[in-house]
Amino acid sequence: MSKTIYLDNAATTQVADEVLKEMEPYFSQKFGNASSVHFLGQEARRAIENARAKIAKSINAGKDEIIFTSGGTESNNLAIKGIAFARGKGHIITTKIEHDCVLNTCKWLEKQGFEVTYLDVDSDGFIDLKKLEKAIRKDTILVSIIHGNNEIGTIQNLEAIGEICKKHNVLFHTDACQSYTKTELDVKKQNLSLVALNAHKIHGPKGVGALYIKQGTKIIPWQHGGGQEFNLRSGTENIPGIVGFERAVELMNKKDVEKMIKLRDKLIEGVLSKIKNVKLNGPRENRLCNNVNFSFEGVEGEATGTYLDSYNICSSTGSACSSKSLEPSHVLKAIGLSDEEAHGSLRLSLSKYTTEEEIDKVLEVLPIIINKLRKISPFEKIVEMLPK
Amino acid sequence: MSKTIYLDNAATTQVADEVLKEMEPYFSQKFGNASSVHFLGQEARRAIENARAKIAKSINAGKDEIIFTSGGTESNNLAIKGIAFARGKGHIITTKIEHDCVLNTCKWLEKQGFEVTYLDVDSDGFIDLKKLEKAIRKDTILVSIIHGNNEIGTIQNLEAIGEICKKHNVLFHTDACQSYTKTELDVKKQNLSLVALNAHKIHGPKGVGALYIKQGTKIIPWQHGGGQEFNLRSGTENIPGIVGFERAVELMNKKDVEKMIKLRDKLIEGVLSKIKNVKLNGPRENRLCNNVNFSFEGVEGEATGTYLDSYNICSSTGSACSSKSLEPSHVLKAIGLSDEEAHGSLRLSLSKYTTEEEIDKVLEVLPIIINKLRKISPFEKIVEMLPK
Repeated sequence: MSKTIYLDNAATTQVADEVLKEMEPYFSQKFGNASSVHFLGQEARRAIENARAKIAKSINAGKDEIIFTSGGTESNNLAIKGIAFARGKGHIITTKIEHDCVLNTCKWLEKQGFEVTYLDVDSDGFIDLKKLEKAIRKDTILVSIIHGNNEIGTIQNLEAIGEICKKHNVLFHTDACQSYTKTELDVKKQNLSLVALNAHKIHGPKGVGALYIKQGTKIIPWQHGGGQEFNLRSGTENIPGIVGFERAVELMNKKDVEKMIKLRDKLIEGVLSKIKNVKLNGPRENRLCNNVNFSFEGVEGEATGTYLDSYNICSSTGSACSSKSLEPSHVLKAIGLSDEEAHGSLRLSLSKYTTEEEIDKVLEVLPIIINKLRKISPFEKIVEMLPK
Repeated sequence: MSKTIYLDNAATTQVADEVLKEMEPYFSQKFGNASSVHFLGQEARRAIENARAKIAKSINAGKDEIIFTSGGTESNNLAIKGIAFARGKGHIITTKIEHDCVLNTCKWLEKQGFEVTYLDVDSDGFIDLKKLEKAIRKDTILVSIIHGNNEIGTIQNLEAIGEICKKHNVLFHTDACQSYTKTELDVKKQNLSLVALNAHKIHGPKGVGALYIKQGTKIIPWQHGGGQEFNLRSGTENIPGIVGFERAVELMNKKDVEKMIKLRDKLIEGVLSKIKNVKLNGPRENRLCNNVNFSFEGVEGEATGTYLDSYNICSSTGSACSSKSLEPSHVLKAIGLSDEEAHGSLRLSLSKYTTEEEIDKVLEVLPIIINKLRKISPFEKIVEMLPK
């Protein structure tokens, strides 16, 4: 069996060896509860506070402006619901290409009496800044716009959005789960009030995330209990996870980002030159360093993925969270794709561990697969998919 | 420096070596996202479903009645808020000795228009079944009663409570975070609709818990997103955590429970015979196998704990979550202790790793400490505490 080529890093990443090594002592040696006053508890407390300070610094925040959560989904839920319930009522602005954890939170808030505007995006996935400004009302309590899109890689201009929010005195939240450490994130420069982060997209562990909350922001906790995390997120802190998150952030660097950009562009250009009737979804500029997304005419993304799987190449047809759903991706629909084009999409997402040989292998295999799938009839496609 | 004697297992436990070993491959090898359709994703999916089936079986539940969460606090929040918001309004019955995650959830729900009855307990921490039945109203939507109390170890009679709830057709939730695997938990026999469980109290990892939800129970998710966990708890599943949780449950056994009971009773009897003017908090019968809680007359629990710490003995003055608070424990107040008695309390909580030599050491050291603390004046106490 050939070596696995993992190109589903937007779904999740492998934990870096250095990260696991850092976490290990916190499972069975330094295992105290950070709320305990004895020395094991205090050791755990110091580990959390060190991690908090480092993660805060990485986005130009103060160390008391970061709280730890169980992941990006929780961070986004807490940010939006915490602000909404602190106000009691009001209007929220978001986009049509948010991750489901933002979209479904907003849909639920609509049922609770809040009003939500879902901004359109252009064919590359960018919002229209003028339309954003126009959408702001006197009762707008929050603007929530994803930084780097998880499906098509579009990176919004946070600084320009932040300026508009500042001008109108509206809180600005961003879901930065895909972009964190991959492109600039500076809460002061970008005028951010809230930022959702997570660890498992950057070679940290699953089950840990963080939320930046600007000092003085009126927010209520969404998980009540013992009052941990400045009384904003109760529950025994996941110390190994937090320590691993910190190490993962430390390990990310510009050189790896540049390498990913180079390989991403090689993959994009290779596919566009080798395969006909293919559309790149998402922009060429201001795109996440690790995101590639294509629609192949006349081919189902699911079939392409299954075929790639047989070559030990891991890919995705969309966001992992909704990949089991039969509905076409809401993101691809929002950038104007037909249902057929959306169903034909394939996401390949790189990591710092992705090598040039792996990209070459994909560029060798993918044209063969697409060619084969285009030649055979739908019935033959099904037969082709059956286990031999 | 002498070996650490860890007697704060009600706050958190060390991860068992067997548990960590089971988790390790899921960090950097079997690291797929369980929602991904490729083979790495499917491998992760199988790991979750195996864990779900085993944990379900351990409480006599069906495998589709368990969902994974980030811990006990989240499980209790989801159970109570999820039921409350599914109904929209109504009356909840709980007790005065719940963990803060239940109490503070209920207090918040009161602000949202729900009504809550907080049942009194007797001097050993037991609720009065007749008073429970009397408290049930036509609009009662939920009874939430802690199984094994985290501070004083009282184990409520779930079967009797379950019968009352069944008779009146009211949903019954229990916080079983301290009792799970330590005493009988059978969702059918005890007529439970919801049960909160967690891993880090039983030598599993921090950051993972579970919620039993009886088939057909009308509940809404508290964390929205990609629809994981039967659409009831969105967020990328913490596979290493879930796998570790499963292994921790498998490792717990009756022999260890019996050993803990023996050592617990040795500790209780030793302290009662060696130290004067001491009160055991919580019952002698129907007590968690690992819980010991004393109030020493004329001595602050904090001072005792600090002194024990200097002998490398880890203890607690109450629940870890509120141990930093200056308020006397709400649990000790509820069983009738004065503020002074409550402040004089010390919790020693055992685990399966606790040895007889460790208990002997505590029985040697504790009388000396209490004696010394009782002899010196408050000012001298402070001096005594200062680093040498």
